[in-house]
Amino acid sequence: MPVTSHDIAREAGVSQSTVSRALRGDPRVAPETLARVLDVARQLHYTPNLAARSLITNRTYAVAVLVSHIRNPVYPQLVDTLHDELSLFGYRTVLLNGTRDELVPEIQAGAVDGVVLASATLGASMPAKLLANNTPLVLLNRDMDDLPTDRVTSDNLAGAALAAEALVSLGHKRIGMISGPQDTTTGRDRERGFLDGLARMGREIDPRLRRTSDYTHQGGYQWGMELLRADPRPTAIFCANDVVAFGVLDAAVRMGFRVPGDLSIIGYDDIAMAGWDVFGLSTVHQPLDQMAKSAARMLVERIDQPTLPPRLQVFPANLVRRATTGPAPTA
Amino acid sequence: MPVTSHDIAREAGVSQSTVSRALRGDPRVAPETLARVLDVARQLHYTPNLAARSLITNRTYAVAVLVSHIRNPVYPQLVDTLHDELSLFGYRTVLLNGTRDELVPEIQAGAVDGVVLASATLGASMPAKLLANNTPLVLLNRDMDDLPTDRVTSDNLAGAALAAEALVSLGHKRIGMISGPQDTTTGRDRERGFLDGLARMGREIDPRLRRTSDYTHQGGYQWGMELLRADPRPTAIFCANDVVAFGVLDAAVRMGFRVPGDLSIIGYDDIAMAGWDVFGLSTVHQPLDQMAKSAARMLVERIDQPTLPPRLQVFPANLVRRATTGPAPTA
Repeated sequence: MPVTSHDIAREAGVSQSTVSRALRGDPRVAPETLARVLDVARQLHYTPNLAARSLITNRTYAVAVLVSHIRNPVYPQLVDTLHDELSLFGYRTVLLNGTRDELVPEIQAGAVDGVVLASATLGASMPAKLLANNTPLVLLNRDMDDLPTDRVTSDNLAGAALAAEALVSLGHKRIGMISGPQDTTTGRDRERGFLDGLARMGREIDPRLRRTSDYTHQGGYQWGMELLRADPRPTAIFCANDVVAFGVLDAAVRMGFRVPGDLSIIGYDDIAMAGWDVFGLSTVHQPLDQMAKSAARMLVERIDQPTLPPRLQVFPANLVRRATTGPAPTA
Repeated sequence: MPVTSHDIAREAGVSQSTVSRALRGDPRVAPETLARVLDVARQLHYTPNLAARSLITNRTYAVAVLVSHIRNPVYPQLVDTLHDELSLFGYRTVLLNGTRDELVPEIQAGAVDGVVLASATLGASMPAKLLANNTPLVLLNRDMDDLPTDRVTSDNLAGAALAAEALVSLGHKRIGMISGPQDTTTGRDRERGFLDGLARMGREIDPRLRRTSDYTHQGGYQWGMELLRADPRPTAIFCANDVVAFGVLDAAVRMGFRVPGDLSIIGYDDIAMAGWDVFGLSTVHQPLDQMAKSAARMLVERIDQPTLPPRLQVFPANLVRRATTGPAPTA
């Protein structure tokens, strides 16, 4: 027998109308209640009756998720969590890879009820076009100044500053930095946060130890090799994402340097792989799963209540110390 | 000025009508010619004029790609290549994660011209439903017996046998195996191929050294820990995909075993990460990018010529020896 909203109500100890409101994203449901309803729905493997709902509401119950760099493991992780969370609310997920500026026809034709944009490129005009088209929109892991829409991010400035403070506290003086693309908010903010963090500790970075990557392993590897050939070479490198940090780690392995004995490395994101023993990457954790869940819920609410004022949710970031950070070597 | 098919024709040294035929997937174009036209199209950053084409052909120029485990890096890699290749032919890609058995409404409503199914689960009824619905369909990295449709795979039986032969040749006698899910063709065929390969070398596997995983790092880690606690423990483990092999490598690191001194590990797939120095994973290479390109072209041809007989393209697999395989330890 299929699980119904009655079953969820009984198990969660709330009324059935509360369950219905929660599952259609009504923002009047208290956050704790929503969390409990969703937990129970997950436990009971609840599947909404879409056909019945579509008849009543005239919605498609499809949501588009737009990403641009699906090979970066951050995105599959966000996409998978979005997919699971949106399923609980009865929405299917359609993923579009690549975010060219024109509106994709599916969206324009109203084949989806809303959009999660999980690509970090600045200046692209698509978000503004979506809003002009009255498409419910949530930006995930990016921020755009002055765009009146819902945004879910984490505190990239403060997170990167934590990395700077940790490295200085460990006694590192020659510190390198491999930034992300400057046309992304994460690239820009993590670079700014790291430099600000150094400045607050009375330090600045040697310009010769700065590089800008495209957020790929190859970029981290190439710049890591180059920085490690510098004389004197850095004893620590901050990388603007985990995949770049893996590239630097590979460069260190290849050149025979011990990590963290000769070189400390800090990444950013804390994707699942960062915790694998073979990496043991010290990194700035942003709560990707929570961020994706929050974006999913915000979009469902936005679809239900298009006139809600725009919201910005910024999750805190924190430093996870694993095996790639240690005291500066005594020269 | 936008690049036109005339520019491609001139650069490729063929007629413009050949370019047009090639880019709409006409199978009468010779494979070498098609390859040259696509290379030039890529070099010139050619973008087809979709609006004009849609008017003429009454197509949507959208293709759905169905995957089920987007966190496994095999799938983002396949998806990204499919996306790029289909773009050359003027098709957009819509990615659907999760392959529940019902037909997804986008497909049913004809919102896409065709489907690439890149999920390996056996027995799911969706492919048959798609074919009953006359939807052009290509199966990628999976095979289904007796299904009259196009399929692109690699030789999982022969590939896994190569791993068995390599380990026996290195003197390993206690060999473990962590299989993939038994409801997938890759899981089933790689297990069968490995056992057959051992048998051809006059060996069989100790049943106590066999485990079945869900193709995740966590599965590899858990079974790796368990197999390495066995007495006597295996000196080599074959893993049915790379991510499981990474988990076993992590287990070995955690337990203080040297790889390959104490333990040899062979994975399967040769995803990009396998070549990173920190892993240096010996693995069975299947040409994922070529397979994805081939599936994209096959689908474009199938859309153009629905009555083509079903085709099966099986790419060869080969063993890539890196840093995780070595001679069996002398007890």
